[in-house]
Parts: sequence; structure tokens; C-alpha cells
Amino acid sequence: MHYELYYWPSIPGRGEFVRLALEDASASYVDVGCEPGPGMGIRAIVGWLEDRQLGQPPFAPPFLKAGRLVIAQTANILLYLGPRLGLVPKSESGRLWANQLQLTIADFVDEIHDMHHPIAGSLYYEDQKAEALRRSGHFRKERLPKFLGYFENVLARNASAKGYAIGRAVSYVDLSLFQLMAGLHYALPKSMSGARAQHPRLHALHDRIAARPQIAAYLASPRRQAFNQQGLFRHYPELDA
Amino acid sequence: MHYELYYWPSIPGRGEFVRLALEDASASYVDVGCEPGPGMGIRAIVGWLEDRQLGQPPFAPPFLKAGRLVIAQTANILLYLGPRLGLVPKSESGRLWANQLQLTIADFVDEIHDMHHPIAGSLYYEDQKAEALRRSGHFRKERLPKFLGYFENVLARNASAKGYAIGRAVSYVDLSLFQLMAGLHYALPKSMSGARAQHPRLHALHDRIAARPQIAAYLASPRRQAFNQQGLFRHYPELDA
Repeated sequence: MHYELYYWPSIPGRGEFVRLALEDASASYVDVGCEPGPGMGIRAIVGWLEDRQLGQPPFAPPFLKAGRLVIAQTANILLYLGPRLGLVPKSESGRLWANQLQLTIADFVDEIHDMHHPIAGSLYYEDQKAEALRRSGHFRKERLPKFLGYFENVLARNASAKGYAIGRAVSYVDLSLFQLMAGLHYALPKSMSGARAQHPRLHALHDRIAARPQIAAYLASPRRQAFNQQGLFRHYPELDA
Repeated sequence: MHYELYYWPSIPGRGEFVRLALEDASASYVDVGCEPGPGMGIRAIVGWLEDRQLGQPPFAPPFLKAGRLVIAQTANILLYLGPRLGLVPKSESGRLWANQLQLTIADFVDEIHDMHHPIAGSLYYEDQKAEALRRSGHFRKERLPKFLGYFENVLARNASAKGYAIGRAVSYVDLSLFQLMAGLHYALPKSMSGARAQHPRLHALHDRIAARPQIAAYLASPRRQAFNQQGLFRHYPELDA
């Protein structure tokens, strides 16, 4: 199967969780938003979003075209890709657990985004900076340790002790946890360094994923987009105080 | 199968999306948080959350105990229950579409919640009222019409023209859309009444679901909890101005 990934160019964003799974599995895919030429780029994304004939329209990117299917919502795309890319256990219980963890990652990501956009996505950061300062204080004290502690526990409680979230093998959840840790270190370097000793398994997982041959090759390629100030992980020093 | 639903008592909250599916299908279940007696109530919920032996811990309620499985995340619980309760199409593509819609409902619900809690879940509304006023203005003008317009479109584009979100039969997505419309009419009566003419299919779906025999019986029973000012749908007139 050849896949078409649709996601806004120039930010890693939520599309990156899908990209990492496709890259790790050496899947055949085109990153439509990032490609030049006819039928590619932002226009192609908007074309799908505005297509009034589409029976099952996506609400927003990312979405994946797989044959006749158009699948949206990051966790839903990974639910579909997981078994096809060998990145999730075969059992139904294993897949439900993977999906549960991915949805908790999605909740965490939403809160990370809203730290710099607590009022509206339509406003610039500078226009909601006072509220962002207030929200980020609560986020750093209450939510960051709660979510990181939860995922650290998940790794600790995996009886296989291989260092992965689920069972004995890497899953798309591990790839997403890698991206989460990388993004948090970009956005909140002080807070993350200060709490490093409390999350040894998450940091070890990050390094282990980064060293996987396909992921290492991807990270060194121009396909990997750097974190930046338009994405969901943003570094504003005042929010990391 | 006998199910155990774990969710905070005294608010409908996210647990209600699961409850409606169980009720519509006349499933055998106990609503653990709401029951008196030993092994029930909040203590039972907290017991699971604090169980350090649990290999696959939930991050937060709702979670569902089904035999040996403990499944968390609302959309994930419905992904599991859907086929077992006959509340989702049999095909993989139909299940993915249902899950995609349910995740978009979850995103909408998060934004509805954050309208009254834009800074922190740990603070009272009164301590973040200024920010809530600002966020709610953007929510009402930008997000409410965008999400409602999207779901109205989904109903309009379903080729079966039976008035359901997916195919020719009711699914758990329809039950969740019912709850969404009921909650929004509670929280934002002015805004919702003002926009009623723009969402005829969503309103018709609400009424059709409410009239289903099992749902009507449930809504008339003491098991149905009223919306209130502790839940995710809250009515603050100043946020509906």
C-alpha cells in the first residue's frame, strides 16, 4: 500500500506522530503538504477539506489517504496503520491499550498547545501572553509532572522490562513518546532538565528510539522538520521560568 | 458480559457518553461510582487509580472493566463496546469513521470544558472568570459554529438519508451527538437557540435519539444525572452573552 499523508507544511505538529510510524516502518508514502508540484502542497490539503462531495470529510489535518479510505484524527490514523506497519501488538487487548495510551498522549499534547494559546487559536501568542503566563505556571506545576509521571509508570510497569510502553517490541506509542519528549525539551528546556532524574525510563526510551536505524536516518534527512515557533511545541522562555 | 463503569458520581461528564451506549443496548452494567455500599463509590475509582500493581493503569476516569480488561479513554471504551453492543458498522472502514467522529466530538468537548476553565482545572471558575469571558467570546464566534457546522455536514452527506451519522443505523456516535446537543443547550441556551435554524439535522437527531425506547426510559430514570455546575457542560450566563 502506498500512503498519502496530508499535513500542513513547515511545522512538525500532529503530523509528526504519523510520519514517525511511516518512517520507522520504511512505508511507501508521500508527504503531500511538503511536496512541490501539481496536486501537492497546501492547496491539495485545502482541496480535501473543502470538497463538498466527500462523504466522510476530515475536520482538520492530519489525514491519511490509503487506497479509497481517507482517515483523520492522529490516534485513529495510528490505529489503522499500527497493525499494517507491525507497530502494535496483534491482540485486541494490546491494540486497545496502545490506543488508550495514544489518546492520553493526545490529551497531553492539547494541553501543551494550550499553554501558549489559552484563549484562542485564532490569536497570536503575543495577544494572549498574560493568560499564557498564568496557564503555563499551572501546567508546569500540576500537569507536566502528572503526565510525565504517568508515562514513566507505564514504562516501569511493563513486565517485559525491555523499556518499551507495550510488551517486548516497539510500538507507535513509543515513537510518539519519543516525539513528546523531544518536543518538551525544545519547549521547556529548564523544566525538563530540572525533572530529568524523575523520568529515567522516558529519557532512555527517547534515546533508544532516536538510535533506531530508520529513525536515525529520518532525523538526519531533510524530511525531518525542526521544532519552531509556529508549531504545537514552542519555546517561549517566559513560559519555562 | 457484565460491565463495570467507573466514573465520578454527581456529574454526567465524559462518563455519560459511555452510559448512553450501555443504556441504549440494555447492557448489563453497574455504575460503580454512583452505587452505595462496599466496593462502590469514589473509593473504588480511586482504588484503581492508585493501584500500583496494575500493569495498564488508567490516567483518569471514565474507565470500563470488562472481564479482565480495564479500558480507559472515552473514545477507546466506545471503540471496544461498539461492535459488542451493535452500535457501530461491522466493516473496518465504518469503525474507523465512527472513531474519527468520536475523536472530533472529544476535541469539541475539551474546548467546551476549557471555555469555563481556560487556565487550570485546579482553580475555581471564579478564579479564572476574566479569562473565561475572553475565551468564551472566541469559542462562540469561531469554534461553536465550526464544530456544529461540521457535524451538520456529516449528517447531510450520509447518503442513506436516515438522519444518522453513519450508514442506515444508529451508532454510538449518534448517542454522543445527542449528549453534545443536550449539553450545549444547557450551557449556552441563547447561542444555541439563535443558531438553531442552521443545524436542523443535529436537532432532529437529538429528538430522535431522545425518543428511542431505551433512551427515553433511561432519561426518565434516576440513573440519568442532570447537567450541573460541576460538570463539563456548565451554564454561566455571562459566557453565553
